[in-house]
Amino acid sequence: MPGEFEAIARYFAPLATHPGAMGLEDDLAWLAPRAGKRLVLKTDAIVVGIHTLAGDAPDLIARKALRVNLSDLAGKGARPLGYMLALMLPDTTTAAWLARFAAGLGADQKEFGIPLLGGDMTRTPGPATIAITAIGEAQPGPPLLRAGARRDDAVFVTGTIGDAALGLLALEGKLPRLAARHRRFLAQRYHLPEPRLELGAAIARLATAGMDISDGLVADLGHICAASGCGAEIELAAVPASPAAKAAGDRYALARVTGGDDYELLFTAPAAAEPRLRAIARKAAVPVTRIGHIVARPGVRVLAPDGGVIPIGAGGWQHF
Amino acid sequence: MPGEFEAIARYFAPLATHPGAMGLEDDLAWLAPRAGKRLVLKTDAIVVGIHTLAGDAPDLIARKALRVNLSDLAGKGARPLGYMLALMLPDTTTAAWLARFAAGLGADQKEFGIPLLGGDMTRTPGPATIAITAIGEAQPGPPLLRAGARRDDAVFVTGTIGDAALGLLALEGKLPRLAARHRRFLAQRYHLPEPRLELGAAIARLATAGMDISDGLVADLGHICAASGCGAEIELAAVPASPAAKAAGDRYALARVTGGDDYELLFTAPAAAEPRLRAIARKAAVPVTRIGHIVARPGVRVLAPDGGVIPIGAGGWQHF
Repeated sequence: MPGEFEAIARYFAPLATHPGAMGLEDDLAWLAPRAGKRLVLKTDAIVVGIHTLAGDAPDLIARKALRVNLSDLAGKGARPLGYMLALMLPDTTTAAWLARFAAGLGADQKEFGIPLLGGDMTRTPGPATIAITAIGEAQPGPPLLRAGARRDDAVFVTGTIGDAALGLLALEGKLPRLAARHRRFLAQRYHLPEPRLELGAAIARLATAGMDISDGLVADLGHICAASGCGAEIELAAVPASPAAKAAGDRYALARVTGGDDYELLFTAPAAAEPRLRAIARKAAVPVTRIGHIVARPGVRVLAPDGGVIPIGAGGWQHF
Repeated sequence: MPGEFEAIARYFAPLATHPGAMGLEDDLAWLAPRAGKRLVLKTDAIVVGIHTLAGDAPDLIARKALRVNLSDLAGKGARPLGYMLALMLPDTTTAAWLARFAAGLGADQKEFGIPLLGGDMTRTPGPATIAITAIGEAQPGPPLLRAGARRDDAVFVTGTIGDAALGLLALEGKLPRLAARHRRFLAQRYHLPEPRLELGAAIARLATAGMDISDGLVADLGHICAASGCGAEIELAAVPASPAAKAAGDRYALARVTGGDDYELLFTAPAAAEPRLRAIARKAAVPVTRIGHIVARPGVRVLAPDGGVIPIGAGGWQHF
């Protein structure tokens, strides 16, 4: 394990490309927000071994730690400005691990245009732990919230749903009969979520409520409904599935809507906005699919093709 | 251990008094920065057992975790706006621990006017770990930096120096002959740093460089000198000591200037600013003491009363 100052200078200072990061050579970072903009802040932590699998590569761990935060910004239509990194590392951490971890951050910084602003690095007798706070800029006024869904609004999702949950099963060896290419696709979806930043920013003014899906579609739609004082009905058959998820078969259909880690966007909007949403989706090259609608009666109901309600367990992911 | 959602609702939502925290019921927090102001951000993490002692009370751990970040804001003359909290907890964490931890945060939120904005809570197989990102508002233009000290500037510190280092020794039972009231004072200084927010904001326009002392006076003055391309000479006898530190005796004089965790302010300013600095210090009721001056020759030299240079070891605290 390299010393703190050496590790910061070698691996992290090159990532601190924002002028307010001052090359990580001062005690804190500064930002000069543009007049009238709203800032949004999100903190998410990854504990290696709890939120990752044994053998996950350090660059993938780093990228996922950053992306889960970016996905929250996307869910609120915000543009990323920078991030703060708290890194707790065991003494056994090697320089090679740090180099790959920093390379992963660097790759995603380029992809999403978000520089490292500052942070802290310390040792821990526990597992490697990464806490990231992402800072983003949203339009004036309150950002897109969970609250705001209205009766008769349509419910939309981006991308395909359930890939990450199936990816986790595949990585655990629980989908042995699935073709290797499908398993690889699903595993990639688990390891590397795609924050829908461009699309999130474009739909923010049309949507009435929005968030990213991390606890699972049904649980997160439940969060929107609870915050908005309404309920929702979604059609299981309308929930978009990737070819790989389809190949896994219908018996995973419920796992797809209750499993977590999708990091796709979930939002509600007036049904009349659908044509404009479709145009935005085409431009961003990200599918947007209408999966149901908001109703007055509280709770989320998943409907079978015959209109019957499919019973769902507690659903969703609690961290304890 | 209470469940995640229950713990957040019971212990942390009452701390989220900023409107942008939305009662911790949404995915992220928002801030509406005032036009023209500069935002500053600081992340510092505490790993229980590494940065704390066995038996440290949860409320003191929480307050220190918050205060070390506030102290950095103070060192840059910034006013705190809010903070994000990443909390990694072992399964053995009790509701009583959480209640006391949250009570400590609540007490300091009131004292320093800084609300909880948002965060993340997750379990860990390691020790309890607290990563806080504090957000503050500074005047327009770059905040007070490490760089900026100029030859012949005077070097100032706030409060008394070395109490926390001696407090750690006292808590480790290494100052058995010191009076109990002095040991208690020093231990308190170790457990509960005093972020000099009011003073830091008032001196920011007069100072040429500034920071808070966390790695130790000599090491941190070395950081200012390195960033400013200069050196410094300080008189050991001029470094202010508390009555308790004086009672510990002269043999701890060097430990006081090399030990860490002071969280007092260290800054440089033109010697001509001293009368104005004294007036500010009186108003804030925080002592400000001139301890030396900036020189061209790199490095920090600690001078004995006879003008001789006292040899100092590597000095300062590295986290690895």
